[in-house]
Amino acid sequence: MPRQITAFSNPLVKHARSLREKRHRRESRQFLAEGLRILTEAREGGRVPRTLFFAGQSAGHPLVGALVAAVEASGGEAIETTPDVLSKLSGKDNAQSVLGVFDEFGPTLAELDRSRSGIWLVAERLRDPGNLGTMLRTGDAVGAGGLILVGECVDPFSVEAVRASMGALFTVPVVRTEWAPFLEWLRSGPGQLVGLSLDTDQDYRAARYEVPTFLLTGNEAQGMPDDYAAACDLLVKIPMLGKADSLNAAVATAVMAYEVLAQQRG
Amino acid sequence: MPRQITAFSNPLVKHARSLREKRHRRESRQFLAEGLRILTEAREGGRVPRTLFFAGQSAGHPLVGALVAAVEASGGEAIETTPDVLSKLSGKDNAQSVLGVFDEFGPTLAELDRSRSGIWLVAERLRDPGNLGTMLRTGDAVGAGGLILVGECVDPFSVEAVRASMGALFTVPVVRTEWAPFLEWLRSGPGQLVGLSLDTDQDYRAARYEVPTFLLTGNEAQGMPDDYAAACDLLVKIPMLGKADSLNAAVATAVMAYEVLAQQRG
Repeated sequence: MPRQITAFSNPLVKHARSLREKRHRRESRQFLAEGLRILTEAREGGRVPRTLFFAGQSAGHPLVGALVAAVEASGGEAIETTPDVLSKLSGKDNAQSVLGVFDEFGPTLAELDRSRSGIWLVAERLRDPGNLGTMLRTGDAVGAGGLILVGECVDPFSVEAVRASMGALFTVPVVRTEWAPFLEWLRSGPGQLVGLSLDTDQDYRAARYEVPTFLLTGNEAQGMPDDYAAACDLLVKIPMLGKADSLNAAVATAVMAYEVLAQQRG
Repeated sequence: MPRQITAFSNPLVKHARSLREKRHRRESRQFLAEGLRILTEAREGGRVPRTLFFAGQSAGHPLVGALVAAVEASGGEAIETTPDVLSKLSGKDNAQSVLGVFDEFGPTLAELDRSRSGIWLVAERLRDPGNLGTMLRTGDAVGAGGLILVGECVDPFSVEAVRASMGALFTVPVVRTEWAPFLEWLRSGPGQLVGLSLDTDQDYRAARYEVPTFLLTGNEAQGMPDDYAAACDLLVKIPMLGKADSLNAAVATAVMAYEVLAQQRG
């Protein structure tokens, strides 16, 4: 049976609230996700929160009921609470009706099976959580094998990244690693490393992509370091007809990923 | 000569700060833009702030000098201030070295010349300022004729939208209008209205786009109303291979816009 908690001072509420900060996520290796659609997608993918908070008014919704049952079956705790507490936890005035505390997850590089997909996304020193979440959402859409984060990237389990991913955090594997181990793993099997660059004449539509393609996107402000570009099998550029010299990183990744997808699907 | 202002209570500082709120932007028809690169792009495009705030330490930078000169030549005011005041104005800890108060601008529908470009972006009930700014940035990159905002959209002059546009607000014309006048204007000349939809089997890569193409993107959560879809000359979909049923709105617009661009460039 779900218990009721309405006090901000309750330790479970305080712990959940603390996960909005990176420091507390790192300590507990837990994170927050909110929204009935996203939590249902997580559940269907086999990810159930340790702690589920749900609004009393939503208790009759069959998908909320399914979440409560799944949480209790897995030994977690379902907590009925108020819209006020949910708003406090989500940091938004208009809080969703459910919010879950999940254990972090994610494979290691060695656990990735590169034959799973013809497209893999790789981002280095990605700074913006919205961009990270959007890349995951795009990765889900193109059937990418995963998103590999290289170097000091923003936390994929931050509230903003989880929100922007619209649930794709639960469907697209995310690996955090460094450049040297990534390159070593990459070269241990088949795979074309394709870098998005401004310093090439190779148009992205005229290039030919192999299977699997690893699409490397550099830091939002600086692009990728020269030695990363030098390690690529292919550098391509997206035409820029205006005054600006670059696209948003998540947009550029998506334009590239859909070109690769179109070629691979024939 | 620039004057020095370091007090938060100064009326010019307070007015600039107030422009972070929509209500004050609407009253004064002014907005904020920040960053040396963006303000320089604005200046080169003929847009000079009414009031320019710059950090004392940056006074020797030639581009800051050029901005100060341009502001003073146009009858505006250049104000030397502190990093603290700039942070207060921008709402960020790490403030840019320059920040300007600009008069709002933008053509009417009737003033648009549709022969200017083969690609036009149209968004209806767009809610997210980051999406709006990112669409402008993409619009700049594909050489779009402009961005037409239909219905209750987020304010293109909000701090977040200006920031996400990375200066494209100053290079891509933005029109705010309603559906009926938009449709009337559209049908008064050549132009194919192409809607992004989930309810069609027409793949976006297999479709053929006319000149000019007007790319219509619906609301982030709901897509476009049925009667808007019915008014389109063509509905197309972007393949979704994963669990999610939609892309981020700015991403979807970009994938479409680059396909249209590739076809139009042959």
